[in-house]
Amino acid sequence: MQAVDFNSDMGEGFGPWTIGDGVDAELMAYISSANIATGFHAGDPGTMRRTIERAKQLGVAIGAHPGFRDLVGFGRRHINAPAQELVDDMLYQLGALREMARAQGVTLQHIKPHGALYMHLARDEEAARLLVQNLQIIEPTLLLYCMPHSVIWRVAKELGQPVVREFYADRAYDLSGSIVFTRNVRALDPATVAARVLRACQTGLVRTVEGEDLFIEFDSICLHSDTPGALELVEATREALDQAGIDVRTPQ
Amino acid sequence: MQAVDFNSDMGEGFGPWTIGDGVDAELMAYISSANIATGFHAGDPGTMRRTIERAKQLGVAIGAHPGFRDLVGFGRRHINAPAQELVDDMLYQLGALREMARAQGVTLQHIKPHGALYMHLARDEEAARLLVQNLQIIEPTLLLYCMPHSVIWRVAKELGQPVVREFYADRAYDLSGSIVFTRNVRALDPATVAARVLRACQTGLVRTVEGEDLFIEFDSICLHSDTPGALELVEATREALDQAGIDVRTPQ
Amino acid sequence: MQAVDFNSDMGEGFGPWTIGDGVDAELMAYISSANIATGFHAGDPGTMRRTIERAKQLGVAIGAHPGFRDLVGFGRRHINAPAQELVDDMLYQLGALREMARAQGVTLQHIKPHGALYMHLARDEEAARLLVQNLQIIEPTLLLYCMPHSVIWRVAKELGQPVVREFYADRAYDLSGSIVFTRNVRALDPATVAARVLRACQTGLVRTVEGEDLFIEFDSICLHSDTPGALELVEATREALDQAGIDVRTPQ
Amino acid sequence: MQAVDFNSDMGEGFGPWTIGDGVDAELMAYISSANIATGFHAGDPGTMRRTIERAKQLGVAIGAHPGFRDLVGFGRRHINAPAQELVDDMLYQLGALREMARAQGVTLQHIKPHGALYMHLARDEEAARLLVQNLQIIEPTLLLYCMPHSVIWRVAKELGQPVVREFYADRAYDLSGSIVFTRNVRALDPATVAARVLRACQTGLVRTVEGEDLFIEFDSICLHSDTPGALELVEATREALDQAGIDVRTPQ
Repeated sequence: MQAVDFNSDMGEGFGPWTIGDGVDAELMAYISSANIATGFHAGDPGTMRRTIERAKQLGVAIGAHPGFRDLVGFGRRHINAPAQELVDDMLYQLGALREMARAQGVTLQHIKPHGALYMHLARDEEAARLLVQNLQIIEPTLLLYCMPHSVIWRVAKELGQPVVREFYADRAYDLSGSIVFTRNVRALDPATVAARVLRACQTGLVRTVEGEDLFIEFDSICLHSDTPGALELVEATREALDQAGIDVRTPQ
Repeated sequence: MQAVDFNSDMGEGFGPWTIGDGVDAELMAYISSANIATGFHAGDPGTMRRTIERAKQLGVAIGAHPGFRDLVGFGRRHINAPAQELVDDMLYQLGALREMARAQGVTLQHIKPHGALYMHLARDEEAARLLVQNLQIIEPTLLLYCMPHSVIWRVAKELGQPVVREFYADRAYDLSGSIVFTRNVRALDPATVAARVLRACQTGLVRTVEGEDLFIEFDSICLHSDTPGALELVEATREALDQAGIDVRTPQ
Repeated sequence: MQAVDFNSDMGEGFGPWTIGDGVDAELMAYISSANIATGFHAGDPGTMRRTIERAKQLGVAIGAHPGFRDLVGFGRRHINAPAQELVDDMLYQLGALREMARAQGVTLQHIKPHGALYMHLARDEEAARLLVQNLQIIEPTLLLYCMPHSVIWRVAKELGQPVVREFYADRAYDLSGSIVFTRNVRALDPATVAARVLRACQTGLVRTVEGEDLFIEFDSICLHSDTPGALELVEATREALDQAGIDVRTPQ
Repeated sequence: MQAVDFNSDMGEGFGPWTIGDGVDAELMAYISSANIATGFHAGDPGTMRRTIERAKQLGVAIGAHPGFRDLVGFGRRHINAPAQELVDDMLYQLGALREMARAQGVTLQHIKPHGALYMHLARDEEAARLLVQNLQIIEPTLLLYCMPHSVIWRVAKELGQPVVREFYADRAYDLSGSIVFTRNVRALDPATVAARVLRACQTGLVRTVEGEDLFIEFDSICLHSDTPGALELVEATREALDQAGIDVRTPQ
């Protein structure tokens, strides 16, 4: 692998509150793509504007990061809603960010659903298909970030929406290729995370929770900005990639 | 006056709730421009989609109707917020509607702030100017509905954003040309309202609360869909206009 | 059956919006117990105050009707949340109503969870047990409205919280004794509903969707105020009970 | 002054978010009274429960800290609402906290409105009077924290609700005795703050922004937990009081 995208969720505060260590502005310097929270699980219009400004300043590409309508649960709780409702919610959020970006002369690169909604679309064909069908009408070149081999990945391939496959630097994998989502992520060691990412980039292998290696393909590394110690993790990972001569840039 | 625009607020339900008599679908048949609530004071993404569908079906032009972030107060309570916050909120809402319209192949015609935010922009130069400056970047041809001679009307004229001046069919005027906003609007007589609108269209005159006539200029008649008996008022007004040979159509 | 309680959900508007036909004030005259929405799925403090006032005026007993934190979904969408979160939410809502009632000198008679939360507690032992344990501390005599033979009914019996078993006048039953929840309830015939209730009161039998009779036991009839034509249904049912000499009164 | 109360706002996170430096748990060890956010401007039921637990553990008295319904604005933006609406909102929040406290066997000591609502009640007689009238019905012994000589202080004295007069350790005073509220509070020096508080306790004097001394009377010191460096400020202040032999305890 000569080059790889590096993405992180940005702007996940709300009103007076910041998330995790509140290091978005610093962290933004190490990534190539920012997923900006769009108001339903986190993010408010002011935070969105400031996050777009910072990304523009640093030349970081931006995308919409829509979630379930659930501030108190931070979009991590599954809500049992019809596909149409969820897609309406996502288009609403996508457009909100796109307008705020337009006001700054910035074009959206991608969309990446958040948390429980990301997982829902990885499994629910009806919602995934309806979303992709709408993206095909609205913006057929908008990149869709997703888990390789998930339902939404398959539907996007079928309908022609370009996908960006993710590797989760700060989440454990099992042998099925699924990531093991946890509500409270414990602190991780920067060197370990960096080595894990580098190995995945160079060999395509990741050690699973079962203790065996899994072969994975991906176009982008994801590291969550609300993981404790996120800034150190991102710095260490970026340094490892730089030293190995792997270029961090947006997906081609 | 040979022709006039006729606008009404549409899609002002929220979730399971409808507003006023719940007659949006019927009322839409009599107007030329629909101001669609965009989620902060009323309206949710599903309601927005259905309202756009209905407008498209009837050939009614649509616009964004952003309000203060205040569902329980229906955007009628003034919130003391900096201009930048309010403009961020409006761009967010504008983009949300525009995306949902785009998914149906519909282009926005206009923007019209709601309730206390409409009144705020009629008086507050900083917020009005910042909004219009952003509209100039985003969409310099987007029509801005406003009160003639208000601050936002003057700023839009100065900066080159096209304006549509409104006449309020269901609100009382005073001699200063201001409308007398009331929290609870009482039922009005359809024939009286229709006659009042027709007189304004034909002579430019409206009887004020002081009992004297005021000369007004306008491009659009506004009648609120949550006024009690709104459907009858709109029907009567439309019929009066039709019989007088005044064409109801979008602003030219 | 000599007497029966008759309960309905009240105060399920929000801000400017009313639910169903907006007939709470009239409907209240026919029931003995009002379940008052407490703000998370519907209801706001002002609506709660006015609903308590009306109940007090008519001598109707009141209870808290807490729901999932989901206004746009009206508490009808299941949210995947830990038991502790849900119980925290219910205590919060219970206390809110209790304080507003205290300000009017009214004591709460009961608690009845709403919609998807009602169904969740009918199945989820952990949440049901944690709620009842808290009720035992807070108010061991507060009546708990629930479905007979549900998990929460069983837990309440075990821990000693008094229960009121409900019969749903406007919902279909299947042979398992479950009610068949539907998102959109169609209009029902008042005479049919009244006859169905009367039969249930007199014989304990209800015709299921499978076409066979089911024997049920209950202490209270529930009729939803947001069912289309609710006022007519409640009037017809109350009249049938009155004519049959069955007293409508709070549970003894 | 032999003894003084020391209060701070606690539990002002929301969902995944914490406020300021996120030091509530540590800060609680230095104060005698905690004002717990009740959900409208900050605080959610889970945070409320955990904050009550911590206060109980440390023997800190608790009170309700209700705010305007404005999460994104953190209750710092004035909302133009009728007195009845605001009092309904406060009773709702008061009861919510009281119930959660009752579940832990804790009784509320006080109520202290938050931010823009605190300032509103310091000036608006109608809202202040309606609140105190309701407190007289609900809990005539509940302590009301307020600014000395404010409207609500005067009304409470008149109607017999016990008041606790506050001295703001981290806010500037002007010669009128008003505190100069600022949206963004800059970092303060712990030694300076501690000395200022100690001087106020020992002499009743505070240096105003005009550079002259003002004589003030108070029963409680308030230091905001979201002031940058709050923990150091509280520690230094508490240490200064301890060394001067001034007992920190709840109001008598």
